[in-house]
Amino acid sequence: MPKSVVISVDAMGGDHAPAIVVEGVQMLAKAFDDGSLKVILHGREGDIEPLLAKNPDAARISRLCHTDTFVAMTDKPSQAIRKARGSSMWNAVEAVKNGEAHACVSAGNTGALMVLSKVLLHMAPNAHRPVIAASWPTVRGASVVLDVGANVECAPSQLVEFAIMGEAFYTALHGTQSPSVGLLNVGTEDLKGNGIVREADALLRRANLDLNYTGFIEGDGISMGAADVVVTDGFTGNVALKTAEGTAKLAAEFLRQSLKRSPLSMLGAFLSRGAYAELRSRMDPRKFNGGVFLGLGGVVVKSHGGTDGYGFSNALRVALNMARSDYAHSIASNLEKLALAISTAEKKDASL
Amino acid sequence: MPKSVVISVDAMGGDHAPAIVVEGVQMLAKAFDDGSLKVILHGREGDIEPLLAKNPDAARISRLCHTDTFVAMTDKPSQAIRKARGSSMWNAVEAVKNGEAHACVSAGNTGALMVLSKVLLHMAPNAHRPVIAASWPTVRGASVVLDVGANVECAPSQLVEFAIMGEAFYTALHGTQSPSVGLLNVGTEDLKGNGIVREADALLRRANLDLNYTGFIEGDGISMGAADVVVTDGFTGNVALKTAEGTAKLAAEFLRQSLKRSPLSMLGAFLSRGAYAELRSRMDPRKFNGGVFLGLGGVVVKSHGGTDGYGFSNALRVALNMARSDYAHSIASNLEKLALAISTAEKKDASL
Repeated sequence: MPKSVVISVDAMGGDHAPAIVVEGVQMLAKAFDDGSLKVILHGREGDIEPLLAKNPDAARISRLCHTDTFVAMTDKPSQAIRKARGSSMWNAVEAVKNGEAHACVSAGNTGALMVLSKVLLHMAPNAHRPVIAASWPTVRGASVVLDVGANVECAPSQLVEFAIMGEAFYTALHGTQSPSVGLLNVGTEDLKGNGIVREADALLRRANLDLNYTGFIEGDGISMGAADVVVTDGFTGNVALKTAEGTAKLAAEFLRQSLKRSPLSMLGAFLSRGAYAELRSRMDPRKFNGGVFLGLGGVVVKSHGGTDGYGFSNALRVALNMARSDYAHSIASNLEKLALAISTAEKKDASL
Repeated sequence: MPKSVVISVDAMGGDHAPAIVVEGVQMLAKAFDDGSLKVILHGREGDIEPLLAKNPDAARISRLCHTDTFVAMTDKPSQAIRKARGSSMWNAVEAVKNGEAHACVSAGNTGALMVLSKVLLHMAPNAHRPVIAASWPTVRGASVVLDVGANVECAPSQLVEFAIMGEAFYTALHGTQSPSVGLLNVGTEDLKGNGIVREADALLRRANLDLNYTGFIEGDGISMGAADVVVTDGFTGNVALKTAEGTAKLAAEFLRQSLKRSPLSMLGAFLSRGAYAELRSRMDPRKFNGGVFLGLGGVVVKSHGGTDGYGFSNALRVALNMARSDYAHSIASNLEKLALAISTAEKKDASL
């Protein structure tokens, strides 16, 4: 039997909680019916119990942990943190801290979840800032892109940390050993880009890390699968991710409009409807739901706030894969090597 | 009759020059046969004359200006500039400087063209750095995005310059008065983003410019047409543009694969082939070819190096629209207002 895993869930987070949360748990419970998965649902008993009554598989693997308070989607992180203690989000993260759960999932307020996770779980040894990693569909399968929004400004050494954490995350999700790591830039030649990416590139080559670093990649390389792990700062990564979402929507809209242009096209579209269903499924953002906060002393998965039950079940699946993986252990030795490389470089600078 | 325009062309620039250059001129000459368009082709006589013999419309509007030297695609800007004098690229830009031509087009080495344009044409009054503006397909038509690669690091006041130049460029291309201007960010709330975009946002609101500035937009807003003009630094803009290209390719590839999944889908695809042709045309990157260097004392259009005749004809069309527009005049008063706003702010700072 696979390793038994407990996932702690903020049942009140997200635009359509707790309904989509319980639906997501139900879907995952059906897929994993070997008894190896347990879920703790943090939230309002009166809202959740009727949902569990209608979702018997979810009920079978869930334990309810009542609380009356929750963080609103519209709260600023500073407000949220003041009233967070005892909320469904707080309790979900605290369960990871206390060792009751192996990972936690919330579709709630991103900023609040980030601050609260840092306060409760602290950083992993030698990691300095949490980073949000996202999965991205490519012609070769899926890549991991990070940071997609936590750090709008990044020092070169932070980008190297992202590379280390992203590599271990990719292995946790896909099982691939030694995935390729690329650094997002405006060109692939040495002299391209700003000082930060050039210095990060030099550090990645120099720091003697156990990484399959392949150098710079450009924006079009992400969807082409030019690297398994794409490293960038949170500003660029967020813009790239959302730009890709917008472009996919634009292509879908243009396709829809074009197929309506004549009765013949419409007939063709009807005959090809299976193909369109497959296409929609391959590009479905719900399939790639579940951004992970990496660098913390515990696993926290952020689901998209507006997702549905299927999307939430995928965020739960990411948490499950992370919990079953060797993630924490595999980043430790590389982060230590990086810290050593940086302190050696600083000593050299100081002695000049 | 519309204003008579002369376009100066680097006939040797690009991967497939001079063939695609002459083809592009031929296409445009057919579309504008009223005698209002003239072209000067800079390049090797022996290579270009046989092409003109086969393209009589191009020959009708073209004058050949022989030179034996040209800038290679692989030259670094610093190398290129040393041997640039007298090259086809140099002469094409110089014709704008001398007043022989209203605008110039090259599909050659971007870095070299940028440096050389700056050396020969200097900056427009009150403009500080050239910026590359690109057209982007949206659900509402097309937007202008800038910078897409010239300035990997930008001060807030530079982003405001981009807004002013982008607005005038949009009007030159599309005729729309007072197009909306948005600033690309990782969220639409005031507190989102880094210090640079927040300061640029404040400056855009404060500087008393004659601009329809609508605030922050996110990456997905570009393709959704959230703003007519999207302002960003050259690093983010380049990554966004290439990410969108990659995503469009991914969607096309997934569609192709899905339609092949069954004989029925393939039949449907055959019946809908007109719709796919229309879709391809709407997303066709050649249609959006022609990045413009804004901020210079003359119009320089950079065509994609790998484009074909159709793509090059669109770059020529951009040059023609710019040459016929009131672009230079319309940026002048706003750049003056910006310079005034900045110097006032600096005086205030100094007097504190």
